[in-house]
Amino acid sequence: MKKVYLDNAATTYPKPKCVSDAVYDFIENIGSNVGRGSYENSYSAAQVVYETRELLCNMFNYDNPLSTIFTMNITQSINMILKGFLKAGDHVLVSSMEHNAVMRPLNSLKKIGVEYTKIPCDIYGQIIYDEVEKLIRPNTKLAIISHASNVCGTMQDIERLGSIFKKHNIYFVIDSAQTAGIFDIDFKRANLSALCFTGHKGLLGPQGIGGFIITPEFSSKINPLIEGGTGSLSESEEQPEYLPDKFESGTLCLPVIYGLNASLKYIEKETTKAIREKELHLTKIFIDGIKNIDEIRLIGYDNIHNRAAVVSIDFLNKDNSEVAFLLDREYGIMTRVGLHCAPSAHKTLNTFPKGTVRFSFGHMNTEEEVKYTLDAIYKICKL
Amino acid sequence: MKKVYLDNAATTYPKPKCVSDAVYDFIENIGSNVGRGSYENSYSAAQVVYETRELLCNMFNYDNPLSTIFTMNITQSINMILKGFLKAGDHVLVSSMEHNAVMRPLNSLKKIGVEYTKIPCDIYGQIIYDEVEKLIRPNTKLAIISHASNVCGTMQDIERLGSIFKKHNIYFVIDSAQTAGIFDIDFKRANLSALCFTGHKGLLGPQGIGGFIITPEFSSKINPLIEGGTGSLSESEEQPEYLPDKFESGTLCLPVIYGLNASLKYIEKETTKAIREKELHLTKIFIDGIKNIDEIRLIGYDNIHNRAAVVSIDFLNKDNSEVAFLLDREYGIMTRVGLHCAPSAHKTLNTFPKGTVRFSFGHMNTEEEVKYTLDAIYKICKL
Repeated sequence: MKKVYLDNAATTYPKPKCVSDAVYDFIENIGSNVGRGSYENSYSAAQVVYETRELLCNMFNYDNPLSTIFTMNITQSINMILKGFLKAGDHVLVSSMEHNAVMRPLNSLKKIGVEYTKIPCDIYGQIIYDEVEKLIRPNTKLAIISHASNVCGTMQDIERLGSIFKKHNIYFVIDSAQTAGIFDIDFKRANLSALCFTGHKGLLGPQGIGGFIITPEFSSKINPLIEGGTGSLSESEEQPEYLPDKFESGTLCLPVIYGLNASLKYIEKETTKAIREKELHLTKIFIDGIKNIDEIRLIGYDNIHNRAAVVSIDFLNKDNSEVAFLLDREYGIMTRVGLHCAPSAHKTLNTFPKGTVRFSFGHMNTEEEVKYTLDAIYKICKL
Repeated sequence: MKKVYLDNAATTYPKPKCVSDAVYDFIENIGSNVGRGSYENSYSAAQVVYETRELLCNMFNYDNPLSTIFTMNITQSINMILKGFLKAGDHVLVSSMEHNAVMRPLNSLKKIGVEYTKIPCDIYGQIIYDEVEKLIRPNTKLAIISHASNVCGTMQDIERLGSIFKKHNIYFVIDSAQTAGIFDIDFKRANLSALCFTGHKGLLGPQGIGGFIITPEFSSKINPLIEGGTGSLSESEEQPEYLPDKFESGTLCLPVIYGLNASLKYIEKETTKAIREKELHLTKIFIDGIKNIDEIRLIGYDNIHNRAAVVSIDFLNKDNSEVAFLLDREYGIMTRVGLHCAPSAHKTLNTFPKGTVRFSFGHMNTEEEVKYTLDAIYKICKL
């Protein structure tokens, strides 16, 4: 059967061929750890890791590669920042569109006396900007915001938010899971304190790599959640204070970093602009094809302004899980159904607890695949 | 130049060919996330992940695959247990041979009121067993012990320790970084509460994967350090309590798990016994070749009883770093020099702060490589 992969918001697939080649080459021909051996292969691995930090800094307009930290995934990045920074009595702002990667650690921190407030969003998932300043308290230390919703693709204006938070001396962190590699993110223009990223979505790398870029000033306020061997200051039984070592303990996921290195070079060559335009072009065809169907509710914006290539649909007269199952079994179309680990977002969009069927496009999808998917939806709606 | 890789205690190399093949195949042909999509590929990835948990349980004689947790590396595993479990007023026992993956988190916990005591070890790095019970206090909650030293290979008798800790109701955790996949570890016979493992050393998988096996009872006492989306209980903004979800948030490092899956099957086929015998055979040739050289001090035991295939040497009349550099540049022999992220172990072995040159063998090394290395050492000693 034909296969159409439309779950790119979970992980992009396929990856550029250079990614699997780079991972394979590392495992077969390099193999060694970084910063621990004094032999040649170990130095060359260190160079590739450093270059990968540089590529990320170039992408996000930040100038210190050593401030780029690697983790296993963006959830770890977010936890390391929230749990390493926040203390009893601190107040945090989030949007009402956050993923559980933000909400679950915050609810845990609530038990030790950290408070948070959800900035309200409209029915499209867009932050109501006029509300932001009203919610700031004297003890508001941090704001963490998803750049684009993993449920409906709606994007927040991070530069507008960044200028508000800067005015009030609030550290500003973004979750770029749905935007990095596709949309332009300027660390400095958005006045970010940290940018959390995942390697295996828009950055087109393999699963197993995430990270964050952080200002030295903000990092100095954060206790490392994970401590251990760093290959540096080996004589000391205390974690080093300098970056990236402070937040990178134990063996790095080197094969995956080699894969990310290759995918970042691929993106530089293809350009984020071309990737974005392709994704939004496909998204437009899809939205235009479904927005007038009576049997469905399109969640979020019905156009391609302010959005990523993630589209959620509620099938009004059907069980969404059944629709997703049919799409897979009868048409080979892979989507993702349910609450997408984002109950707060679904509550905002009025799709809780039923959830939605999510279609998310990558730049490797084709117009033909989108049209095939629309055709499948038309047929399912008529069942 | 000929290349001889003798840094297997850092990461094993080469990996069995099936490892890179499995990783490549996942990235190219599977690609999808686990437990989040309702489509076929997503289920097949879930099966491989589950099977990998089973393979680990089979290896360590534990019967619940869902109690096997995956992390990025063993340092994360150790931190998750120590920082998730210990509270102010608790007391911990460690050996004096621990790696900084244990010591750095413990020194951090000390600042919030956790106490620890180092069980003394002799000059060979062996725990002085008669001292153990004397060090137990009413508030001793946990013992964490490295099964084998990453500096000199000396192994502790974990079954003997396990019976002591069981008698005193102390949770017992081991760091199996240098032994898993090579030596037999029986979770139940050693009365373990948790077994921390790394995937890329004796388990022969790629870097980027570690984990721990834990009893349900012990896990119920541990707060998850990392929380977020688990693909389960998506309607809840609280972390699930059940395993493995409680400790596995965000996207798993799937390509690497596919690699580990392949390497574990390779080990099952080759058998740990054959791997161990090969490694110790090479170690014996090496030790016999150096133990009578006047210019060096062999650290730890001068035989292959109670040891892993890790040998440390102090070149008495030379700079150890210079020796490691010469071995690499002149002979293509890759070793690891310094303190090996284990200052406490080096203090025990009386090699602090100078450190040692470490030679660590894998079962893919050959007798010829060992003899070539001995020859290089003889020549360097004569310089």
